Amino acid sequence: MGDPGGIGPEVVVKSLADPDRRARALHRIYGSSSAMLHAARAAGIEPFWARIPRVAASGTPQTLPADASEVVLIDSDNAEGPAPVRSPTAEGGALSFQYVEDAIADAGRDRSDPLRADAIVTAPISKEAWALAGHAEFPGHTELLATRFNAPRSAMMFESPKLRVVLVTAHIPLSKVPEALTIERVLDTIELGHDACRRLGVPIPRIAVCGVNPHAGEAGLLGDDEAQVIEPAMNLARARDIDVRGPFPGDTVFSKALRGEVDLVVAMYHDQGLIPVKLLAFDRAVNVTLGLPTVRTSPDHGTAFDIAGTNRADPGSMNAAIDLAQRMCAPITP
Amino acid sequence: MGDPGGIGPEVVVKSLADPDRRARALHRIYGSSSAMLHAARAAGIEPFWARIPRVAASGTPQTLPADASEVVLIDSDNAEGPAPVRSPTAEGGALSFQYVEDAIADAGRDRSDPLRADAIVTAPISKEAWALAGHAEFPGHTELLATRFNAPRSAMMFESPKLRVVLVTAHIPLSKVPEALTIERVLDTIELGHDACRRLGVPIPRIAVCGVNPHAGEAGLLGDDEAQVIEPAMNLARARDIDVRGPFPGDTVFSKALRGEVDLVVAMYHDQGLIPVKLLAFDRAVNVTLGLPTVRTSPDHGTAFDIAGTNRADPGSMNAAIDLAQRMCAPITP
Repeated sequence: MGDPGGIGPEVVVKSLADPDRRARALHRIYGSSSAMLHAARAAGIEPFWARIPRVAASGTPQTLPADASEVVLIDSDNAEGPAPVRSPTAEGGALSFQYVEDAIADAGRDRSDPLRADAIVTAPISKEAWALAGHAEFPGHTELLATRFNAPRSAMMFESPKLRVVLVTAHIPLSKVPEALTIERVLDTIELGHDACRRLGVPIPRIAVCGVNPHAGEAGLLGDDEAQVIEPAMNLARARDIDVRGPFPGDTVFSKALRGEVDLVVAMYHDQGLIPVKLLAFDRAVNVTLGLPTVRTSPDHGTAFDIAGTNRADPGSMNAAIDLAQRMCAPITP
Repeated sequence: MGDPGGIGPEVVVKSLADPDRRARALHRIYGSSSAMLHAARAAGIEPFWARIPRVAASGTPQTLPADASEVVLIDSDNAEGPAPVRSPTAEGGALSFQYVEDAIADAGRDRSDPLRADAIVTAPISKEAWALAGHAEFPGHTELLATRFNAPRSAMMFESPKLRVVLVTAHIPLSKVPEALTIERVLDTIELGHDACRRLGVPIPRIAVCGVNPHAGEAGLLGDDEAQVIEPAMNLARARDIDVRGPFPGDTVFSKALRGEVDLVVAMYHDQGLIPVKLLAFDRAVNVTLGLPTVRTSPDHGTAFDIAGTNRADPGSMNAAIDLAQRMCAPITP
């Protein structure tokens, strides 16, 4: 459900209000009924979920309704409360952190366990609220998931109708980007992106790699990270039969992708990849975490505290996130 | 004319082939006749310029045709030569550097001097070629112009139909960006951008300022450059009655600009500003150098050696650059 005070509850309510979407999977919401009910009331949507109190010791209780068309709310509230505070709070941080931990616990269950979750879709949390709640060590969902699943390598990918982008680095200060770029990390990201493209139905993915410096370093005049790190990683990828091209200047590579010349762009840092995604996707982009033993998707927007509670949030990205998670859970057709 | 081997000659020929554009100013091309003639021939355009040999000692000779509709080529060739080499060369670097130096000399002439140039429009040069020619100290036109005009502060702005962006830093490696960002430099850029907006007809410019870190630092969790540098600069700008807003995350601010909520975006580094400009402007963006005692515009594309000589270059950005320079030379209507 994400932060109770953000737009998470609203986009979850709006998205799962669609009976067709509900019918395609068994959906479990880790959240709090007060936030859900306030969002439903503001949107004029009749509550459609079954409420099951969260069990303090284990999160999800051992018995859940069997009907696949029924949405279950694993509820951290004891009763309906007042509307949530529309800003980062320690309470919102603690709750939204706990929702994710519960979802991770269920995703980590054995395949034979009926309580197992096959995919996690996360609504937006506030990093500031997580820090207030004592979870500053995790700047976001992606890092928490990677830690809990002991993922040796992971990456954030963004899937949108026009553009698919994967990030080599994400939630670190810009000043830390150059030292965080290593041959291994660039290669890992290329490989994870390559595998994800194949899972999404591209048999031989064409991958464009961004430089990190202006004009991709302009032959070394504006930086040597391209020659020292990015090109060696690309050569290793080529040795593994991956079609990588570049490194291209950040300010020309995305037009190339829009023209359909490549299937994936590998961006070196957060804004380099997210500026074009957010500019072009108009709330249709989905964040996909690669490298985990579970499927994980997320809308690409934040908590938007400024409009939370006003019924103005667009569920488009959450719709796309849930739909993509459903699609990625399906068996791959060979 | 830019690098003889790039698409500069082609876009100059195509752009000034329009008699309406020619009639609005007296145009002087600093270039070489062989490159110009090859471009004209490939484009099927009859040469429309008067050729005047460059004077080795002084660049522009002391007498020029008086007819304002006539384009004059200050020619560095002795005669028509073979097609230029389509890659960065020391010769191309030396020539394109000299063209700019000659233009700067004419722009620096006294207002009463009939040889004075009121504006400089630059076609693309190759930084690599400039380095091969021994001019590695200047990564681009902007830095050369700032040095020659002793400009205490200058900035690159990009003007396009949908978006106006000014850069605090430009042609430096990404790793040098954080240390290059100072309160003074951010403030200077805000002020230069503000003044340029007013010159372009916006009486009270609304200016959005980008953060440098992901999510604009997310309240300090992802970097403190926003609190240490950007916000203090914004407060100083506010004290000078400039309407600045932000700092906004790089990946959301440009949508704000597209919705018409602001007149200018202040970006902290090259790709942050140029990715959206190039993605949205489709060869209609113009690079404007702020802070000089002369008007200076430039198309926002590079030499494009890969397509040079094939008559496939689009003169749209050069057209816009020349038109904007003409407009900025006109007296401001109060």
